[in-house]
Amino acid sequence: MLSPILDFFSSDPKDKKLKNAIEHIIGENPSNLTLYRLAFMHASVSKETVSKSYRESNERLEFLGDSVLGMITAEYLFKKFPFKDEGFLTEIRSRMVSRESLNVVARKMGIDKLVEYDGNRKTVLTRTSMYGDAFEALIGAIYLDKGFRFTRSFIIKKILTQHFDIETVVSNNPNFKSLIIEWAQREGKAIRFDIVEEGSKHNKEFTATIFVAEEAFSVGQGYSKKKAEQTAAMKACEKLEIS
Amino acid sequence: MLSPILDFFSSDPKDKKLKNAIEHIIGENPSNLTLYRLAFMHASVSKETVSKSYRESNERLEFLGDSVLGMITAEYLFKKFPFKDEGFLTEIRSRMVSRESLNVVARKMGIDKLVEYDGNRKTVLTRTSMYGDAFEALIGAIYLDKGFRFTRSFIIKKILTQHFDIETVVSNNPNFKSLIIEWAQREGKAIRFDIVEEGSKHNKEFTATIFVAEEAFSVGQGYSKKKAEQTAAMKACEKLEIS
Repeated sequence: MLSPILDFFSSDPKDKKLKNAIEHIIGENPSNLTLYRLAFMHASVSKETVSKSYRESNERLEFLGDSVLGMITAEYLFKKFPFKDEGFLTEIRSRMVSRESLNVVARKMGIDKLVEYDGNRKTVLTRTSMYGDAFEALIGAIYLDKGFRFTRSFIIKKILTQHFDIETVVSNNPNFKSLIIEWAQREGKAIRFDIVEEGSKHNKEFTATIFVAEEAFSVGQGYSKKKAEQTAAMKACEKLEIS
Repeated sequence: MLSPILDFFSSDPKDKKLKNAIEHIIGENPSNLTLYRLAFMHASVSKETVSKSYRESNERLEFLGDSVLGMITAEYLFKKFPFKDEGFLTEIRSRMVSRESLNVVARKMGIDKLVEYDGNRKTVLTRTSMYGDAFEALIGAIYLDKGFRFTRSFIIKKILTQHFDIETVVSNNPNFKSLIIEWAQREGKAIRFDIVEEGSKHNKEFTATIFVAEEAFSVGQGYSKKKAEQTAAMKACEKLEIS
């Protein structure tokens, strides 16, 4: 890895461009550019490391950033909705940090222009979550570079309050179950929902599996049977590109 | 809610006992005792609030604490294993913060003696995750009371390094799939595993559903088919109390 000191003296125009872009996104000079470079390195252009079993890409930073984003969003919603139960908070958070909505936010922030990936595999990647993933990796990089307070304020100011209208997130609930049932009828395929119950009496979680022509097709979880079915149906709709 | 000032002057012997217990666990005087009182309030003794639709219990704090614990554990493992991929980090984290292991840590810390619940419903609750849940709620309370740095150091020093031998966590992998198949054979029941694939090319997640006598019985997820099956099998073993 390059040290921050080397980054500072780097005159590579690509580094300059990245530095400016990061400064524009986070509102401060990056201290360790190497972290941000890594955040935008998709697995398709991953690099060898000293360890033979590990190739360097943004996937580790994504793991870290995902947990930081989840935690800050949890705290934000906990404080914003003092009289809503944990089922509600879990549900709203999962809508806000879903791959779909992170992809949208990432594009709005211009992160799609920063991600490095292997262009030859582009067709495989077009419909994937590459930008949302890089966005989470960026959050991991910011956390390591700038610490918790800075990252918390970045997430709240630049993401949660700027890119989401909470009222809309709360009320937005398309009926995916109807959509998928209509699709199956159109296609003449048998469809059924299977529900499994788990957890304690006071904290039940449900898992719904959708079977199309007796083949397991998608799975969803939730704090009610209805929610689990909705999630499974949403994933099935995504798979089939129905909306 | 009682203010911290009122807490300070409280002479209720129950409050004194709680204050001492918290000080013993976190190594510092609690500033806002109300938060900790709430952390140990199981849903079976939940209280009415000004909002008719919400009853106060530790479930909201558990939601918050779960995300704080997940994040700190993510950072800890990220730094401890610089050459392991995100699949490994995800897997080890889920073992460390599983309900099972949190229940064990909670008992070791004496949290089982602090939880308030409705004794009449005890039989229903004995085999649940009540103590692990309260432990997560405690982490939520510490975070709100003492802030991020304190909570981070508490989690690393008092939980991650003290209660877990990482080598053991990494190597410990009982074969739940064999156990559940043996059980089904003993009972003369048909058993099968169904796998659903999700996610992008480079970040595939699998969901396995176990069917016993053609009824969906348990569900597991993981970054490989094997892992998803193992998780589903582990949950089935828990349900059947096999180990």
